[in-house]
Order: sequence, then C-alpha cells, then structure tokens
Amino acid sequence: MRLALLASAAVLAFAAASSASAEEGMWTYDNFPIARANATLGTNIDQAFLDRVRLSSVKFGGCSAGVVSGQGLVMTNNHCVATCVANLSTPQVNYAETGFTPKSREEELKCPGATAEILTEISDVTERMHKAGEGLEGQAFTQAREAEAGRIETEACGNDPKIRCQVVSLYRGGQFKLYKFRKYSDVRLAWAPEDRAATFGGDLDNFSFPRFAIDAAFIRLYEDGKPVETPTHFTWNPAKPTEGEAVFITGNPGSTQRLLTMDQLTTIRDVVLPLDQLIASELRGRLIRFAEEGEEQAFIAMDPIVGLENTYKRGRGRMAALIDPNFMATKAAAEVDFMQRYAASNGEGADPWGRLEAIQPAARELYPVTALLEGGTGMGTTSVAGGSSLFQWARAIVRGAQERTKPSDQRLSEFADSRLPAVQSGLFAERPTYPALEQIRLEWWLSKTREWLTVDSPHVRVLLGKESPEELSARLIAGTKLADPAVRRALWEGGLPAVQASTDPLIQYVLAIDADARAVRAEWRDKVDGPTARASEQLAAARFAAYGDAVYPDATGTLRLTYGQVEGSDVPGQRFGAFTTFAGLWDRATGAEPFAVAPKLLAAKDRIDPNAVMDMAVSSDTIGGSSGSPAVNAKGEIIGANFDSTVLTQRNAYGYDRNANRSVIVTTQAVTVALRDVYGMDHLVEELGVSR
Amino acid sequence: MRLALLASAAVLAFAAASSASAEEGMWTYDNFPIARANATLGTNIDQAFLDRVRLSSVKFGGCSAGVVSGQGLVMTNNHCVATCVANLSTPQVNYAETGFTPKSREEELKCPGATAEILTEISDVTERMHKAGEGLEGQAFTQAREAEAGRIETEACGNDPKIRCQVVSLYRGGQFKLYKFRKYSDVRLAWAPEDRAATFGGDLDNFSFPRFAIDAAFIRLYEDGKPVETPTHFTWNPAKPTEGEAVFITGNPGSTQRLLTMDQLTTIRDVVLPLDQLIASELRGRLIRFAEEGEEQAFIAMDPIVGLENTYKRGRGRMAALIDPNFMATKAAAEVDFMQRYAASNGEGADPWGRLEAIQPAARELYPVTALLEGGTGMGTTSVAGGSSLFQWARAIVRGAQERTKPSDQRLSEFADSRLPAVQSGLFAERPTYPALEQIRLEWWLSKTREWLTVDSPHVRVLLGKESPEELSARLIAGTKLADPAVRRALWEGGLPAVQASTDPLIQYVLAIDADARAVRAEWRDKVDGPTARASEQLAAARFAAYGDAVYPDATGTLRLTYGQVEGSDVPGQRFGAFTTFAGLWDRATGAEPFAVAPKLLAAKDRIDPNAVMDMAVSSDTIGGSSGSPAVNAKGEIIGANFDSTVLTQRNAYGYDRNANRSVIVTTQAVTVALRDVYGMDHLVEELGVSR
Repeated sequence: MRLALLASAAVLAFAAASSASAEEGMWTYDNFPIARANATLGTNIDQAFLDRVRLSSVKFGGCSAGVVSGQGLVMTNNHCVATCVANLSTPQVNYAETGFTPKSREEELKCPGATAEILTEISDVTERMHKAGEGLEGQAFTQAREAEAGRIETEACGNDPKIRCQVVSLYRGGQFKLYKFRKYSDVRLAWAPEDRAATFGGDLDNFSFPRFAIDAAFIRLYEDGKPVETPTHFTWNPAKPTEGEAVFITGNPGSTQRLLTMDQLTTIRDVVLPLDQLIASELRGRLIRFAEEGEEQAFIAMDPIVGLENTYKRGRGRMAALIDPNFMATKAAAEVDFMQRYAASNGEGADPWGRLEAIQPAARELYPVTALLEGGTGMGTTSVAGGSSLFQWARAIVRGAQERTKPSDQRLSEFADSRLPAVQSGLFAERPTYPALEQIRLEWWLSKTREWLTVDSPHVRVLLGKESPEELSARLIAGTKLADPAVRRALWEGGLPAVQASTDPLIQYVLAIDADARAVRAEWRDKVDGPTARASEQLAAARFAAYGDAVYPDATGTLRLTYGQVEGSDVPGQRFGAFTTFAGLWDRATGAEPFAVAPKLLAAKDRIDPNAVMDMAVSSDTIGGSSGSPAVNAKGEIIGANFDSTVLTQRNAYGYDRNANRSVIVTTQAVTVALRDVYGMDHLVEELGVSR
Repeated sequence: MRLALLASAAVLAFAAASSASAEEGMWTYDNFPIARANATLGTNIDQAFLDRVRLSSVKFGGCSAGVVSGQGLVMTNNHCVATCVANLSTPQVNYAETGFTPKSREEELKCPGATAEILTEISDVTERMHKAGEGLEGQAFTQAREAEAGRIETEACGNDPKIRCQVVSLYRGGQFKLYKFRKYSDVRLAWAPEDRAATFGGDLDNFSFPRFAIDAAFIRLYEDGKPVETPTHFTWNPAKPTEGEAVFITGNPGSTQRLLTMDQLTTIRDVVLPLDQLIASELRGRLIRFAEEGEEQAFIAMDPIVGLENTYKRGRGRMAALIDPNFMATKAAAEVDFMQRYAASNGEGADPWGRLEAIQPAARELYPVTALLEGGTGMGTTSVAGGSSLFQWARAIVRGAQERTKPSDQRLSEFADSRLPAVQSGLFAERPTYPALEQIRLEWWLSKTREWLTVDSPHVRVLLGKESPEELSARLIAGTKLADPAVRRALWEGGLPAVQASTDPLIQYVLAIDADARAVRAEWRDKVDGPTARASEQLAAARFAAYGDAVYPDATGTLRLTYGQVEGSDVPGQRFGAFTTFAGLWDRATGAEPFAVAPKLLAAKDRIDPNAVMDMAVSSDTIGGSSGSPAVNAKGEIIGANFDSTVLTQRNAYGYDRNANRSVIVTTQAVTVALRDVYGMDHLVEELGVSR
C-alpha cells in the first residue's frame, strides 16, 4: 500500500505536517523544550520551575492531581474520586447526592484501594533494554524485554512499599527510562461536591464547551495515620484567570497513537474502534434500562454508566478523526515527509513501515479474540475481558497463584515482583460489589464474546460449554464469595494449593478457561505485539534520524508537561469564548436533568459572585488520563484542574490540531467559591491560604 | 480522489472484475439471460417457464412467497409471518409458542394490515420519466420525477383496490418501468410452526450454515370472504433435493448498492453504517434487559429483538465487506475498468464519478440529521425516525391530513393518490401495541437524536424543548389514544380539521415538530437525493455505453429471478456441505436456549425420517427481501423457500462473490415432514398433492 499512499498523498498535495505546531506535545520532564515554550508564550520558566512543578504533581490511579498545601492536601477532579465516593456510599448515605464535606481532618475517609504517587527520579535504561531484546523475535522478544524491565525495577526499588519503580517505554521503544515514584497507600477523601455540581450537563455537555461544572475534589495523603508533610506544593491562586495567559498542564496523559503508521491507524479505524464501540453501546443500553428499574438500580448503575459513556464518547471522537478526510490527509502527508527525510538520511536502512504493514492482517484477525478474552492489546479504548470486577479478581487470584510459583522474570509481566504490590492493593481493598451489576456485565461479556467469535469457535466452547451466557453468569455470580475481601486475601495468601482446593465457582471457572485465554494472549504477543515492538523500535530510530531528538514521545500514562494559553475556539462546529461564569450556569439551568443545578449550590446562589469564572478553555495538548492535571501559571501557581476536552479534541489521540484542540479546566476561583460559599469547608479554605 | 484511486488500483494490480460471474445477478423478468442460465446450469428453461414462475411469485410485505395450490395457498417464511403471529397472540394464547395449526380453512385467521401482490405486467416508461426531470436540479428534479411517477401510476391503475401500479427506477435511474400488480388485501394465516422450530439456533445460527430451522409458514389469499382461485401455481415437490441441481429463486430482493461508486461506498462505510449500528446496538441492550424483567416483557420484546438482531447482523456483514481490503480492491479495479471503457467509448462525456464525489461532503454532513429525523435516505440499514409505531402512525395521520389538501403531484411522494391505500391499510389495521415497548423506543430515539445532533442543535431544541427524552416519551405514550385503530381512522378520515383540533398529545407533538423535520428532508433532497439521482442517471448511461444492456440493475424490492446450484462452501471461515438433516438437528440440540428443540417437533422425533433434508445451501444471488422466495427447480416445481444467507454473503449488498455467496433454503421435504409428521396439518398435505 505504501507506493499507492505516496502517490495519493502527492496528488492531494496537502501541506506536509512535518514540524510540530508551536504548542504541540506532551513532553517528558527530562526533554521539555524550555526555550521554545518561553518563546511561544513570552514566559521565563527554567529548570527550577520544572522541578518544583514535577514534585508537586501527583499520579492518582488513572488520573492526575496536584499537591496544594504542606499537609498533603491534593486537588483532583470529582470524577477521579467518583469510584471512591461510590465505594464509601450506600443508597442511604449517598455522598454523590449530598457531597462529602468533613468538618475536620478526623472525618476524612480512606478511599478503598487508592494509591497516589509522586515522580522523584528519571534515569536512562535504553541500552540495557535494547540489549535484552537483541536477536529475538515474536513472543521471545516481548518476554525477554518484560523480564529485563522487571529486573531493573526490582534492582532499583527492592521491596520498599513506599517507592515504586517503573521502566517506561518512550517513542514506542526508541528510549526506555526508569521512573521512580514516592508512593502513598493511604489516600483519604477530603472533600467532594454534590455530584451534580461536578457533572452539570451530564453526558450531554461532556466533551464540550461551554461547561458549567465544578469537577474538582480534594484528597489527602496519609502515612502512619497522619497527614503527610509536603513542603513542595503549588501555591493556591484563587484569582480570576486572564484570557491569553500562559498555562502549563502537568499530568499523566494516558495513551496516544501519534507515532503509528497509516496502516496501523487503518486497523484501528476498521477493526478496533468498531468492535469496542458496538459492544460498549449495547452494555450502555442494558445499564440504562437497568437504572430505570428502580432507585437502588439507579444508584448502582450511576458510576458505571458515567464511566462507560465517557469512554464511548471518546471513541466517537476518535472515529470521527479517522474518517475525516482532511485530518487523515494531513497524517498521510506527514508520513510521506517522514519517509522521504528518512530515505534521504539513510536510503539503505530498514523498512519499519513495511514490517508494520505486514503485521496488520494478523492484528485484524486476532484483535477480536484477544480484546474479548484478554484485553490489554494496547489498541482499544476499553478492556472488556471478564466484564465484571468479581471475574477480574478471580483471574488475578488464579493467575497470581500460578505465576508466583515461577521466578519473577518468567511470569506474565503484571505479576513480576515489582508489580505485585499494585495487584494486591487492588485485590485486598474493601469495595462494595452489586450482584445484579456483576451479573449484567458478565452476561454481556459472555454473550458478546460468543457473538463476535461465533458459537462454534473453540474459544467459545471453552467459555460456555453447554451453558448459555444467561445461565452461566447467574450461576457464577450467585455462587461466588469473592465479594468478601477477606476471602480474596485468603485465596491470594494461600497460593496455588488454596486456589486449586477452592470450591468457589468463579475460581473454578477461571481455572477451567485460563489455559485457552493464555494461549490467545501468547498468540497475540507472538504475531502482533512482539513484531510491532520490534518494528516500532526501528521506526523510532528512523524518526530520530529524520528529525533529531526534538520530538516528543506518545503518551504512556506517565508524567508529562504541556503548555498553551487560555483561549476560546473559532472553528466550524466549535465556537466559544474562553470562560464560563456562575451567571452562565444560572442561565443554562432548566430544572430538569441533566440541567438541574445541585441543591446546595443552588441554595448558595445569592452568596456567589455571578462573574466568578467556573471553567475555562486552554489550547494545551491533553488527553484522557490528564483528568485532574494541575493547570499552572508561569509563576508556578495552580489556577485550575483539567477535567475535560472537546469532542473535536479527541483526534489528538492521533495528532495535535492547534485550531481544534481545547482542554477544559475548572478554575481555582470556582473551587474557592464552592469551598467557601457553598460547602462551608472553612478549614480547607484556610489551609489553602485564601483570605476570607 | 479519483486520480489517486486509479493509481492505487493500478498499483494493486488486482484482476479487473469487469464481467459478471456466471451466476451473478438479480435479474428483472423482462431482461433475464435465458441462454446464459441454460448454458451455466445445463437446463432448458424458456419464456413460458419465466411467465409461469412470475405469476406464481408473491410479494408479501417486505418478504417474498409463492403460490402452491389452486386455492390461494402461499408458502413463505415463518419469520415473514412473525408480526402477524404476534398480532394474533396474547401472553395467554401465544401462537409463537404453540404454533398456529388451524384444522380447517374456517379457522384460518386474518393477518392485520397484511397484503399480498402478484406482478402481472411490466411496461417501459423511461422516456416519460427522463423527460419529466429534464433541465431540473436538486429538489425540483426529485419532486418533478416523483410527481410524474404518481401521475403514471394513477393513469394506469385509477382507484381499483385490486390492482396497484408502481413506477420502478432501475439501474439507479437508467430505466423506469411501470409494474402492475394484482393485489389481495385479505391475507390469512394458514399454518405456522412453533417459533422455536423455525428459529432453532436463534441469533447465533442466524446468517450461518449449517442451519436446522423449519423457517416456513403458509398464508392464504382471500377475497370476498373466500379463498382466491389461483390456477397458476407451483407444483409441490417434496422429494429430497440433489447436490448440484439447478435452483431458480424468484422473489423481491430489497436493496443492493452494487452500482454505487467507491466514493459513495466510503460514505456508507464511514458515516452510515457506524451510526446505524451503534444506535441499534444500544436499543438492543435496552430491549434485552427489558426482556429479562419478566415473562410479559419477554413476550413483548421477542419480535422486536429478533428483527433488530437480524438487521444488526446484516449491518455487521456489510461493515466487514467494506473494510475487507481484497473485496474493496476488486470493487476499485472494477470501477477503474468501467472508467476506462467509458473513456474509450466517450472521452468527452459527462463525469458522473466527479459529480457523485462532489455530493459526498453534503451526504456525510446531512446523513445523521436526516436518518434520525426522517429516515428514508436510501443509504442506511434501518429507518429509526420516531422509533415507535405510535409515533409513526401519528406522523402518517398528520402528514396525510396536510398532504391531502394538495393536488396529488405536489405531495410528499408517499401520499400520492396511488400510494394512499398502502398508508391507510397500515393505519387502520388492528395491531396490539405495548406502552412499555413504545416508550422504550421513543425514549431511545429522542435520546440518541439528542446525542448525535448535540443538545444545542436547533433540531434538538424543537424536538425536546425543555423536556428530557425520559419525561417527554413517558408523557406522550401515557397520554396518546392512537393505540386504538378507530381513533386513528377517525383522525385520518377527519382530515386536517380533525387533526388540528385533536388534543392527543402525540398528534400535537408531531404537529409541533413537523415543519422542522420536513425542512431536514427538503435539504437532503436538495443537496443529496436530487443531485445523486441526476448523476446516477448519467452513470447508468455510462454503464450501458461501456457494457451494453447485458447488465442487471440493483435490487429495488421488486420481483427478480436469480439462479444457481445446490452447493456447500469451502472458503476460509465458511466450510460446510450442501445439506442438513433432522439427524443433525437431534445432534446439535443441547436442551438450552437457543438450542432447545421445539416441544412438538421433539415429540415427533420417532415419526421423522432422520435422513430427510431440513435446509440446504445454494449459490444463488439473494439479499434481504428475498426471505420467503420460492426455490424452484428446472421443471418449475417448488423445492424450498429462501430464508437466510451467511454472514459472508452480506457483502453481496455491494458485489457478488461466487465463492462466498450462499443462500439458505428450507426444503419442501422438511415442510412436508413438519405438516404431516409433527403438526397434523392433513388438509394442507392433501391440498399440496402429497401422497401419504
């Protein structure tokens, strides 16, 4: 296809997008373009600024956050604590309804299973990692590299529960860095608003602007039962932001695919997103109807529906990008430019594009079975395997028991010694589960797997035997005791003998299907993952050869810094100013969901300055995972938290478009108003240093 | 894009698919390739054969059927009478559960609103139709042609309720024919098996082979309370079919898009199918969960779920075709061949490809709003507008009242004089409606429309005002009286004054939103439909210039004859023999749904010859709408009824692939076994001339 592509791109004669836009890039802290940022924004930041911002930045599960006081207080988004709030709530005491407003630190409650981390050190391990894979192919290549990463992590961190080490692949294998984190395992909820104050507009306003949402919350880091001292933190700036002012966003953008070839993107367009979106859409329908069955069901389904709709809408934005002829022509032209520069610099070199093209038939064939049975393909928007939390716990227990009988470097990578603490803290946490919800998800997963793989697939025979998805899911969920964390812990600690002796139907089920699922995973690694990693390493080398090292890597869920300005938007389908105010909220409210103002917020209307800014748009380059990222001004003060971006911005998974890209930020001004004028959180207001 | 396309197709160097495969084509009866069929199959059919087969062929709603006795007895599929069976059933007397087995003609029951038609005459009206559109563009062009079609139909048929005239566009405007039908408005159900005997394997086996389904049923044509005399009919042949034997399939294939350009297919791939499939998927989830809420809900949802899953799986097969690199390369190569031949024959001619390409941006932009608010784009797999039957009736009443105040040729085309009888018979029929189901559908439709068009769209503001989809749908369905056919009839007959005076909330609602919906339709006609029809007419002329008239038109829901052989399949992912037997059914049964054998069928196991053939695969070219089509041998005897095809076959919407294409036929042998050995339908067995 490449020749044809060159021809077609040439015919199209689009401007080559070879040089990054001025504000493009989710940069690593050790390769941030200080001079370029200062030139673009008219600022004067330096390395000390970077260090301070980095040490004030927090990774909180799949979200980002920032330290805002010396006593371990951390701001993130309300939607980043939604699962914590749900876990701490019951239909009777529902903090999502009322907000969570402890009157003192003693009333702050622990988020089950939550951890928070601060990145303290980055070092280069590229040579060791490249050497580990030398001369290997397919699964052997993947396995050798994963083993080496596990060894590096264990050597650097040992068993210290307060630090975590992670080998990070950057530029899709072009570089490997060892990231060292200070880790906090006691994270407590310090404040959350009424959920409706954070989600005003609901799924309808999600991924849009103007927004009128106070999507913020506070957690606090604890150790030994006491708040952690955090001398390095952001200064809280509650002032009104200014249009055009420089904004730095520091956080952990989850995943981008900007360095993928056109052939790889075509696989995502044709195979990956359609499957993910279609089955998500059906689950959404099942959950929506379930939520309509009664108040308890509505309570149970709320958090899962919000999460699902968020993922689904992100997928919609991505599909829209991949079928946009202009956007894709720009991508194609950039690829042609890359090929030509590379050919000029190294005409006899490797052909990574050809290798990646050759992998696509296998990727297209194997994606459905791998995504459905295992997840973790690195390509999809969702990981559906198992569908239910109980199933996922059962699988972690069974595989953990099997894997721990092997040396660390021969295990499935997620069970390497350095990663066991994360598995355990997920497994041992007190979290409520709801049998009806678990059953819906398990039934849906089994039924969609049967549909996509067909009833006569050997995998489906293993999965279902003679049972139907309805019968099987009902039997497993009714019979399992894994909802009890003590049971999970006992099985984990009992190891393989305990697991094999268990009569829990879900444990038995996972034991019965696991060999087949592992074989599916192995085939993917052998035919897709391994060869892709190999070729991507070549592609990364080609990129350095063509463009030098002033390029940024794809997002990988690790800490990045990005920059831009407070700015509205003026492109077709996306025209708005830079700010929204409380006055705008009162205007937009209809009284009907999802445009009903949260009761406590509404009750405070007279106390609130109508001109206070709620949310703002900035041009910085962000993506899912950036949620909760501190928005920082040029002085290093926190002025907001990223919580959303527009639908048009979702194309930034594949490429940055300066005109379309707008991140959405809840301002520290809005949070200050909420804490002081709505929720009576005086002790937090004081801790933040706001004068009353 | 065309130059690039030519280049890319040339690079690919795929074999040009310029000449149709030997068995390709859904041929019109007045252009059937008798000589070619005889040469391919070794048969000896002639014009008398064609006439006899045509006059024995029946159009039954969206299905096909065949006359099998001299007393108006007609065989079709069970799934073609499913709505009739549902309409005649209650949760207490549920014929889908028990089968419908009248012991004499007196017990046969009328299918509400059903009609059946036999094509009696075809004449050419191309010149008149082309002349009507001369010099016009956009909506004016569409309107003028529709008006002319209405005039031709009225002139030819007048108001005779026993005949119907229809101007049929063939080759996308290349030819126009006037089809004249003998019409029967009293159609009664004469036999239906237990639904599970017809749907064994359910959605899992649907669109697959081997199948073990007796998807057959009988209806009978009545007039003046008596069975209609039908001297021309198929002879019933209950013998075991032979592998390799010639099969002709006569029926009304609904719609193919084989003559579309690559640019048009890309719009379907990128915009049409994703929207249709995603929203269908969510509705499916809502209905599946609803069906799990109780026995009554399961009863109510059964028929809608089956229909939805059928459409959805067809869409999946089509998406698979449009992303199949080989299939699309063949299509691209065929287009290049066509362009080159046309250029050779007429270098200075029109450029229909360029015109169609220029329409696609508008089609892509307007498809969502048009599909959601109006349907009838001619591009999608489903028409969702309104979602609920009650809504659709309300719209028919309101628009019918408005349109009937105008001269016939100035109306929306479906309300031309010649088409009013069809509207009325749909509207006046006794059909049960279920408020819960209606509300789910209306809520889903409103909610998906809001999602795809966004909450700030002016169309959505018109649709919802300040209400939510949940509130609005609940209010409308609770308040409307349109479930009562007498109310519908009174409003229809009362015309515009009655409609405007009505306090029915659904009527008022449709009145309030109708101007906006009509404007959407008008824009589509002006920017997409009209220009496409114009350019397609040029494309058809180009095709005749390039290939002569030995080409067949796209399917249009009108009578066609297709031919092939009884044959298994041996391509990747589709390997099977030509037949299934009752022995195979007993083998495949697990006792669990959907692989539980229907009780009466199971009880008759000992009486049934295990080697009798149930279903067979044939290579004939069919598509949705072909359901119920008689399968006829070279002697003109009926040997089965088409009821399905494989998933791989769904690509035949866009092109015929001899190796993949397999239609699935229930044999007359299986139907004979069912009538005689299972359901005790002795009077029918005798009527069919089967010796016991």
